[in-house]
Amino acid sequence: MRKVDPEKYEAKRRQILDAAVVCFARSGFHKTSTAEICAEAGMSPGNLFHYFKNKNAIIEAIVDEDRRKTSEWYEKANQADDLFEELFKLMQHNLELIAEPVYRKIGIEIFAEAMRNPSVGHLVARNDAEQIAALTGILKKAAAKGQIDASFDIAKLATWIAALGDGAFGRAALDPYFDPTDQAGVLREILTRILKPKAER
Amino acid sequence: MRKVDPEKYEAKRRQILDAAVVCFARSGFHKTSTAEICAEAGMSPGNLFHYFKNKNAIIEAIVDEDRRKTSEWYEKANQADDLFEELFKLMQHNLELIAEPVYRKIGIEIFAEAMRNPSVGHLVARNDAEQIAALTGILKKAAAKGQIDASFDIAKLATWIAALGDGAFGRAALDPYFDPTDQAGVLREILTRILKPKAER
Repeated sequence: MRKVDPEKYEAKRRQILDAAVVCFARSGFHKTSTAEICAEAGMSPGNLFHYFKNKNAIIEAIVDEDRRKTSEWYEKANQADDLFEELFKLMQHNLELIAEPVYRKIGIEIFAEAMRNPSVGHLVARNDAEQIAALTGILKKAAAKGQIDASFDIAKLATWIAALGDGAFGRAALDPYFDPTDQAGVLREILTRILKPKAER
Repeated sequence: MRKVDPEKYEAKRRQILDAAVVCFARSGFHKTSTAEICAEAGMSPGNLFHYFKNKNAIIEAIVDEDRRKTSEWYEKANQADDLFEELFKLMQHNLELIAEPVYRKIGIEIFAEAMRNPSVGHLVARNDAEQIAALTGILKKAAAKGQIDASFDIAKLATWIAALGDGAFGRAALDPYFDPTDQAGVLREILTRILKPKAER
């Protein structure tokens, strides 16, 4: 058996994931073949299977990568002093992401696949549950610090803040006049009204 | 040529649409054949083509029906005295709809199809534009009546209220702990804070 150089292996895996994202965004998950992904990645067909068992494993890896990024983001945000600012930054970052057509298309593909495919659905649900838990944690901490209104049911509030983020995704996908890069002002005002203690609203 | 009884024709068309909704929710738009829809509707295969040119025409009819219902809803809401109450009722009605798994599944199928299929995409975008225009109209009227805060950019506000509705859809689809029937209280509080004049927030 050949020895595997971990760095080279990781680079090759990265190359396949990047190519898969391009293909899935272009043609959709179901209409993309592993041969197309190999062509996009500039590697011979079959080579892909040293890195991913099948097409499903690729979409699972994309979802898992999203999970790691989100979790890192929340961990950093949790250390900050002003948690309202961090929540606003988080929502603003979401607007930046959804401004990218490839991100939006992949997001829709993953969402649709999660509804049909139990293994992808399981991973997406886990990401989502982790994100809601992290959001609830930040909101609780912010409430304890007096940075947001503490009279709300925080778990439900977290759900609706997440809904606002998901909804912005829907707007960016459906409404050609919705420019995510032009929404920071109104988003800040809405978050202020929903979240800030009454005296600061 | 046989004479067509308009009522019978409409009933048959209705029967096909209802069967198609069941099939699309069960297997997805792409995996459903017109033969399956005929079986579900209890009619002989081929009969369907007297009513719909193809599968695409069926999904287009579903989208068009949604459009008519939404437009009727807004027309009625526009006549009411208290427009904040109407907006709340609209959002509450959305929660009732998304509590139904078939509605959610069809919604996701249509959303995904709108992203790939230009003719469906065009219809969905038109529905969406009409809904945003109707929502903007109600918000403007409410602001003129002093029922909501008038200092906001109303067009942007309409977009974010729509985002909240879309986002609730996302929550219902992704989060097994999100019970749409248990959200009216927190939704009302959030809409009050975002929309009501400062003194009433």
